[in-house]
Amino acid sequence: MVRNRVTLKDVARRAGVSYQTVSKLLNHQIRLPEETERRIWQAVEELGYTPHYNARSLRAQRSFTIGYSWPPSPPDETNPILDQFLQSMFVAAEARGYYLLMFPYHYQVDKQLATYAELIDTGRVDGFILSSVEYNDPRIRYLQERKFPFVAFGRSNPDWHFPCIDVDGGKGLYEVTCHLIALGHRRIAALAWPENSRVGNNRLEGYLIALREANIPVNATWILRGEGRLDFGYRATHHLLNLPSQQRPTALVALNDYMAIGAMQAAQERGLRVGEDLAISGFDDIPLARYLTPPLTSLRQPIWEIGQQVIERLIDLIETGQFPEPQCQLVPPTLIVRASTDPNAKASTGSYSPSTKEVING
Amino acid sequence: MVRNRVTLKDVARRAGVSYQTVSKLLNHQIRLPEETERRIWQAVEELGYTPHYNARSLRAQRSFTIGYSWPPSPPDETNPILDQFLQSMFVAAEARGYYLLMFPYHYQVDKQLATYAELIDTGRVDGFILSSVEYNDPRIRYLQERKFPFVAFGRSNPDWHFPCIDVDGGKGLYEVTCHLIALGHRRIAALAWPENSRVGNNRLEGYLIALREANIPVNATWILRGEGRLDFGYRATHHLLNLPSQQRPTALVALNDYMAIGAMQAAQERGLRVGEDLAISGFDDIPLARYLTPPLTSLRQPIWEIGQQVIERLIDLIETGQFPEPQCQLVPPTLIVRASTDPNAKASTGSYSPSTKEVING
Repeated sequence: MVRNRVTLKDVARRAGVSYQTVSKLLNHQIRLPEETERRIWQAVEELGYTPHYNARSLRAQRSFTIGYSWPPSPPDETNPILDQFLQSMFVAAEARGYYLLMFPYHYQVDKQLATYAELIDTGRVDGFILSSVEYNDPRIRYLQERKFPFVAFGRSNPDWHFPCIDVDGGKGLYEVTCHLIALGHRRIAALAWPENSRVGNNRLEGYLIALREANIPVNATWILRGEGRLDFGYRATHHLLNLPSQQRPTALVALNDYMAIGAMQAAQERGLRVGEDLAISGFDDIPLARYLTPPLTSLRQPIWEIGQQVIERLIDLIETGQFPEPQCQLVPPTLIVRASTDPNAKASTGSYSPSTKEVING
Repeated sequence: MVRNRVTLKDVARRAGVSYQTVSKLLNHQIRLPEETERRIWQAVEELGYTPHYNARSLRAQRSFTIGYSWPPSPPDETNPILDQFLQSMFVAAEARGYYLLMFPYHYQVDKQLATYAELIDTGRVDGFILSSVEYNDPRIRYLQERKFPFVAFGRSNPDWHFPCIDVDGGKGLYEVTCHLIALGHRRIAALAWPENSRVGNNRLEGYLIALREANIPVNATWILRGEGRLDFGYRATHHLLNLPSQQRPTALVALNDYMAIGAMQAAQERGLRVGEDLAISGFDDIPLARYLTPPLTSLRQPIWEIGQQVIERLIDLIETGQFPEPQCQLVPPTLIVRASTDPNAKASTGSYSPSTKEVING
């Protein structure tokens, strides 16, 4: 026999006070004489009264909560997609009656997995969104072992199967490299991440394919790898510009905007005109990219769409137990051509954009 | 008589299965024959078994969860403090056994308050952090009426009393204005927010005080108000530079970095050297500020410290019911002088900073 749900009225009757009094106390709206408060709490416990959320949660054996954690950005960079990604996710979650729970990202694997374990074991969340996914990601292995629902923004090992959505960074790099080839460039360098970077390899692949298709031999000295930071882009570009003139690249694709900005600064220090003497492109289309001098060609990720999709897929998975199809969904980034690769580029998209010419002459 | 807590063992005994089986089912780790699952769920309901988190939550009549919502940044800007503020808050919360719950920011007041009401009524959260606080903020009024714990990052009406922490923007503007006066400037303009902007008025006050102390009359034509966006800074600066030469400002304080960047672009379009012909300062010290040409003088907010403090204060309030003292804590921003106001400024703080000279000549 399933017991009837205990209501606030039952608590009030047992404690010998009014419904309003109980409601206000439980909502922290009043303080009552100690003895009265004690009597009400005792009635709450004896009757096993649970407030609405806990009741819904117990009925459904769910928390209607999704966990999300992400690594902090370095102090001198802003995570260009974080706000939009979070907003998109919790708007999508709210539409289906869920909320997002945030928790710290621990770099130490044991501590990281302990956090996931605690959230699962205490019934705090029904599933997780993962991002900044890498090869052999321990979170994926752990959640798969626990058979706990999650959806990743990002791919991992090619032979691992789990629901994910990813930006097709390779397609983006392919497009921007083709754009540079079409402008006549043959010596195109790449500022990339270390070889163990999953995102970096996905992106670099597109650059390599574009060169191969155009029968341009890949030159290993033009592929420089480092931390995806502004200062690496700056140093790597100085290094490239120190090559003998016949080997010096005329164009450069950076796997993110910060490296591209460092590259622009190095080129400008040497008196080169970015976009004319050296073409430079980035990735992410950070808000300031269009306002740089010259404005930066970049690749924009459809972050709002991705936020909506990861949540939709996760809630479907939580509620149906069915893996979504296709298991991994790839969405292409959009190439935004500006004067850093093409001096004739029209004003970029956006509410305000000075014409290329004005800014260059400034 | 308070009933003893029902354990997983009780459920297993009643359902006639092993402890492991119940544990795995409740953790979504296995699927069992339909009849077995039904029997276990029935035992769960009949015995009123609650998993650990709910149990802790029911015992304490708390959710150990803090709600936070913030307005999304415009599509062509990045919220420069969001990541650090969130990371700081959930690290501080975790240290005391709490998590942060995110929910959408609704601009429509009714809808916004309904969200707060739901989170309170369902026992989802124990308190809220508010930010982007304005005059007559309806959230503050509502939470005070409900006597529900909250701490605000930001002040509101001067005669409202509630726990808050705020950056002393007035002190920051006072400092940067004094810095400009010390450099010999007398015609100093201000790019400000509309008059109903609480943050804007706090900041502008410092500018006015600094002028007054230096016996420099305030010139109303030099105080321009608009949306704190790059394009407003750009248009407003063109307007200022169109003034007859004797009335034209030689320096300009912007209440945020985006307006300052727009101002730099307008000045550069007219062939002015920023920092020499026109000094420009911002506020926020966005990560790219130091990499602009020239690097931008700005005011940095101690965001990590503020994140820690708002959470500490809120949890104290939740757990003790006592208002913190002082009720409103003001923390000063740090002035970072760079070449946009002082061409002789040394390289800025940060891991990488090209010298002013190199970049200007680039």
